[in-house]
Amino acid sequence: MTPPSQTQTLLRDTAQVDTASVQPLPASSKIYLTGSRPDIRVPMREIHLTPTPLANKDGVAQLEQNPALRVYDCSGVYTDPTVQIDIRKGLPNVREQWVIERNDTELLESETSRYTQSRLHDAALEHLRFDLKRKPRRAKAGMNVSQMHYARKGIITPEMEYIAIRENLLRAQVFDSALLTQQHPGNSLGASIPQEITAEFVREEIARGRAIIPANINHTELEPMIIGRNFLVKINGNIGNSALGSSIEEEVAKLTWGIRWGADTMMDLSTGKNIHETREWIIRNSPVPVGTVPIYQALEKVDGVAENLTWEIFRDTLIEQAEQGVDYFTIHAGVLLRYVPLTAKRMTGIVSRGGSIMAKWCLSHHKENFLYTHFEDICEIMKAYDVSFSLGDGLRPGSIADANDAAQFGELRTLGELTKIAWKHDIQVMIEGPGHVPMHMIKANMDEQLKHCDEAPFYTLGPLTTDIAPGYDHITSAIGAAMIGWYGTAMLCYVTPKEHLGLPNKDDVKDGIIAYKIAAHAADLAKGHPGAQIRDNALSKARFEFRWEDQFNLGLDPDTARSYHDETLPKESAKIAHFCSMCGPKFCSMKITQDVRDYAASLGENVDGAEEIRMIDVEAEMKHKSEEFKAQGSAIYHKV
Amino acid sequence: MTPPSQTQTLLRDTAQVDTASVQPLPASSKIYLTGSRPDIRVPMREIHLTPTPLANKDGVAQLEQNPALRVYDCSGVYTDPTVQIDIRKGLPNVREQWVIERNDTELLESETSRYTQSRLHDAALEHLRFDLKRKPRRAKAGMNVSQMHYARKGIITPEMEYIAIRENLLRAQVFDSALLTQQHPGNSLGASIPQEITAEFVREEIARGRAIIPANINHTELEPMIIGRNFLVKINGNIGNSALGSSIEEEVAKLTWGIRWGADTMMDLSTGKNIHETREWIIRNSPVPVGTVPIYQALEKVDGVAENLTWEIFRDTLIEQAEQGVDYFTIHAGVLLRYVPLTAKRMTGIVSRGGSIMAKWCLSHHKENFLYTHFEDICEIMKAYDVSFSLGDGLRPGSIADANDAAQFGELRTLGELTKIAWKHDIQVMIEGPGHVPMHMIKANMDEQLKHCDEAPFYTLGPLTTDIAPGYDHITSAIGAAMIGWYGTAMLCYVTPKEHLGLPNKDDVKDGIIAYKIAAHAADLAKGHPGAQIRDNALSKARFEFRWEDQFNLGLDPDTARSYHDETLPKESAKIAHFCSMCGPKFCSMKITQDVRDYAASLGENVDGAEEIRMIDVEAEMKHKSEEFKAQGSAIYHKV
Repeated sequence: MTPPSQTQTLLRDTAQVDTASVQPLPASSKIYLTGSRPDIRVPMREIHLTPTPLANKDGVAQLEQNPALRVYDCSGVYTDPTVQIDIRKGLPNVREQWVIERNDTELLESETSRYTQSRLHDAALEHLRFDLKRKPRRAKAGMNVSQMHYARKGIITPEMEYIAIRENLLRAQVFDSALLTQQHPGNSLGASIPQEITAEFVREEIARGRAIIPANINHTELEPMIIGRNFLVKINGNIGNSALGSSIEEEVAKLTWGIRWGADTMMDLSTGKNIHETREWIIRNSPVPVGTVPIYQALEKVDGVAENLTWEIFRDTLIEQAEQGVDYFTIHAGVLLRYVPLTAKRMTGIVSRGGSIMAKWCLSHHKENFLYTHFEDICEIMKAYDVSFSLGDGLRPGSIADANDAAQFGELRTLGELTKIAWKHDIQVMIEGPGHVPMHMIKANMDEQLKHCDEAPFYTLGPLTTDIAPGYDHITSAIGAAMIGWYGTAMLCYVTPKEHLGLPNKDDVKDGIIAYKIAAHAADLAKGHPGAQIRDNALSKARFEFRWEDQFNLGLDPDTARSYHDETLPKESAKIAHFCSMCGPKFCSMKITQDVRDYAASLGENVDGAEEIRMIDVEAEMKHKSEEFKAQGSAIYHKV
Repeated sequence: MTPPSQTQTLLRDTAQVDTASVQPLPASSKIYLTGSRPDIRVPMREIHLTPTPLANKDGVAQLEQNPALRVYDCSGVYTDPTVQIDIRKGLPNVREQWVIERNDTELLESETSRYTQSRLHDAALEHLRFDLKRKPRRAKAGMNVSQMHYARKGIITPEMEYIAIRENLLRAQVFDSALLTQQHPGNSLGASIPQEITAEFVREEIARGRAIIPANINHTELEPMIIGRNFLVKINGNIGNSALGSSIEEEVAKLTWGIRWGADTMMDLSTGKNIHETREWIIRNSPVPVGTVPIYQALEKVDGVAENLTWEIFRDTLIEQAEQGVDYFTIHAGVLLRYVPLTAKRMTGIVSRGGSIMAKWCLSHHKENFLYTHFEDICEIMKAYDVSFSLGDGLRPGSIADANDAAQFGELRTLGELTKIAWKHDIQVMIEGPGHVPMHMIKANMDEQLKHCDEAPFYTLGPLTTDIAPGYDHITSAIGAAMIGWYGTAMLCYVTPKEHLGLPNKDDVKDGIIAYKIAAHAADLAKGHPGAQIRDNALSKARFEFRWEDQFNLGLDPDTARSYHDETLPKESAKIAHFCSMCGPKFCSMKITQDVRDYAASLGENVDGAEEIRMIDVEAEMKHKSEEFKAQGSAIYHKV
């Protein structure tokens, strides 16, 4: 071990938050909805809107107030200007008291992973280390601390109540909005989303295994969230360094940047240097669940030689990460020896990193996958920290040609068997899914998953619906993601424009997140999630009323919308203009429509809901109204 | 009329082609497939591939040749380096001889539109004018020159034969490729695409009205193409100036740029200055069909006052444009007076420009839409030049809230009636569709359209599947476009990232085109278009074999893919490296997979197509192979 240089800079002294990540989104403020106890404080983002100018009345301009819209908010306290952010200290504890009160855990004297110990005692790492001031926590002997375990005992945890408030977009609003009445009924294709999400409903879904709350007892900074098909569709963003680049500070910046734009969970897929230390910084600063693929780090520990992996190294890695607070582990326990030859004739073989590592190990040792043979041992670890399973699809197709083949579906059936074993231990489980699938073969994936995995939440990568657009796979996959989200996938793993080509930078992370927020929201609309359409309606109303600033601010990315508008019409005055650059001031369909609306509305109630207006009924009145219409001229800006 | 200034620059002397549009795509060359007569020369782009390095044999490196892939090519001679491009002269005539040979048209002494005459005699426009050296052509009295008319008489035109060659991706290839064997059967949801596209099949589809060939007899520069659901899904790009900007040269540049990236047709939606002159330049330089919305120009002629529109002005506009060579007209003849009040309670009223103009006209005059009452008069013009109808959806929804409402579907039924009238005249028809529609309500649009419009091709804008992402509507709509393309839409009208916000620039045009090429191709895969998957397979094979340059070049946008790769690994040597920046040199799933493949393949035939490998059969051999595998070490780069 190298002693630290006297002059070495310590990250714990210097690390700075990414400044772009601590700006609240425009016209937005953070509010908290309080639950049954004062420490259940559920964040929402409130988007403030301007009033709609109405026609003058007695020479006085009239205004219609547009109440602020509240939206689900993953961004943590970074966007709360009342909180002092210091990534060297990490986030405030949200859940510690809840964990303590359950009285089923104990603080360890020190970390129990041998690897963690070796890192802690390596002075050469001092400059990288997060200044962790607390000890890890573990279930008391014989106890099971998973949310599923509580749910099955009938206990509604504070986490469950928190989530019920968070998911309840309807109740969160401050108004009985007319915007609600125009929501289309969804077509949930088998999901059954209640109009009101209650804590008891959350508990039932967790107990049933149809949803999970990834919430490691050591990740007390977490703002609880749920993954299940009867809730809002979630998205995951990936971060993590590789052998070719990226620092700890950059990874934390990708995290805060990703959640600012709406990532519901973040996976740390680091395969480069200092994975342990990088992860500590990420978890301590993450209000969203953090997932990992522990086999990546285990492989680093054996210098990248898959054959040298052992259960002992892997087990120590699980404990190392569980004690840091990782909320879910991707475990490729379904890559069975007998499935591997089924990939031989594929166009693109095995493309999952975890899958190929395990395949290589299996072939090399001619033994069954140790993740499979030790699955119950893994369960024992999971329940001591409440780490959720994300059962990895190591044999997912890597190309359209390989979609839905025997290897993929063979593995899926094994994941179904493993789900039942995990549930026997009250461990929360989600199932990872493909990959590359043409549109007409997507639904079969969802159907097979529901059938074989007994409705455990599905967590899919894309799927990419074509292979011919490298550089645009956020789009090829957003198509598949939206569809499979509608069909019932609970969480969508994002794909950035750099997929297949390189490491995503911050712009790519944002592009991936936005594409996936679109897919998830499109799926929520199609499923008919209560309240999902309020935001579409609010934005459409703003658009129709030429409230440009509101239109920008209600969108997923106000900055980009505003900058696009400014390219053609940069002046501030254009933001309140009743036209836009596409058509110019003289020729605007929205403007003309307002005339039509005023006119038609004046025909009275007989237009309301009518399938067809019979000309004979309204002809006389229309003639009269026609004269009125002409008399008033083209009252183009009559709303102001 | 102002006399031209002596020093005025003439566009016919100065106009330059956009240099970026005349670069062939990387590693590509233009080839022509010849039909039954030498002047049927169908362009294809041939993408050249590098060989795959195989394992050494007797110390000699072995190579597997990868034959060039031929893809559909809309880019015209701009990407043919053997052709001298001069936009001042326009494109070579492809079809003139075919039109002449049919002996059913005559050259006019001069343009018959009064408006055209006034423009031609306005000396102030001299500097803008294209140097047109030929006279317009029109059907001889009583003749019908539409492709549908010929098809119904049993005539296979050169245009039809050209298209059969063009659509036949399978036959176009120079190889019996293994890449074909891995194509998934599609799920065409009612379409019936034959394995081989014959000229007779094209004729039948045109005669039946299930497809159209937009091909004005005055657009002889056209490279014929077809729009119908039993053919490749097409995309349209929009160009056109507005009162707020853009010059003629810019519009021609948008055209050439758009087709370089794959636009199958282009609509000129100009609403600004010099619409007539701009259009002349566009058509003379367009190898793809050009569509317009004539009511836009008619409105300009009455200074933007919708009430002042008359049938006479509109009729003259149709003739003006037909004699220039516009291939299809959007006509909002389904906006009936009785439907207008049905839009009154909408969130966003009428958002189609054409729809709102006609609604305003109807209300103002209290008369039925003159496009409807004069529909048969319009048909007489269409058949004299073979202009196709694109029956406009003037009442399409402008927001999720307004999707699939009574106004929209009322208009659709009227468009169905009009289709039958047009067909009575042997006029080709396609139907325009929405707009903004959540995913679960998309299929109803397709089903209603097929039912009421008797399978006339559907041509949809998006649809956008959510309203909450201004700045990203190329993505919100690519999702809906891919789905409706799969369901049976024949052509997808692109949406750029600037939709709702501003005028698209060249980057936006490209982004919109690429997003829509993705949607169209995803739909072709899902429908099972013969040969569509060859390109996916070729790209996936290149990806698996680390042929980076081939992976870039086979993609829709090689430039972007290459630049993304170069951001992380800029060196040329990295282009042949057997790893990529995501995972680094030591840790690559593709690399490991190759080991698995070699190994598993060595097990012999018993893995081929087996649903499951029974361990007992192969156990002994696997043990033996395991030893072999270890003995050879991790033969990581054994392919070179």
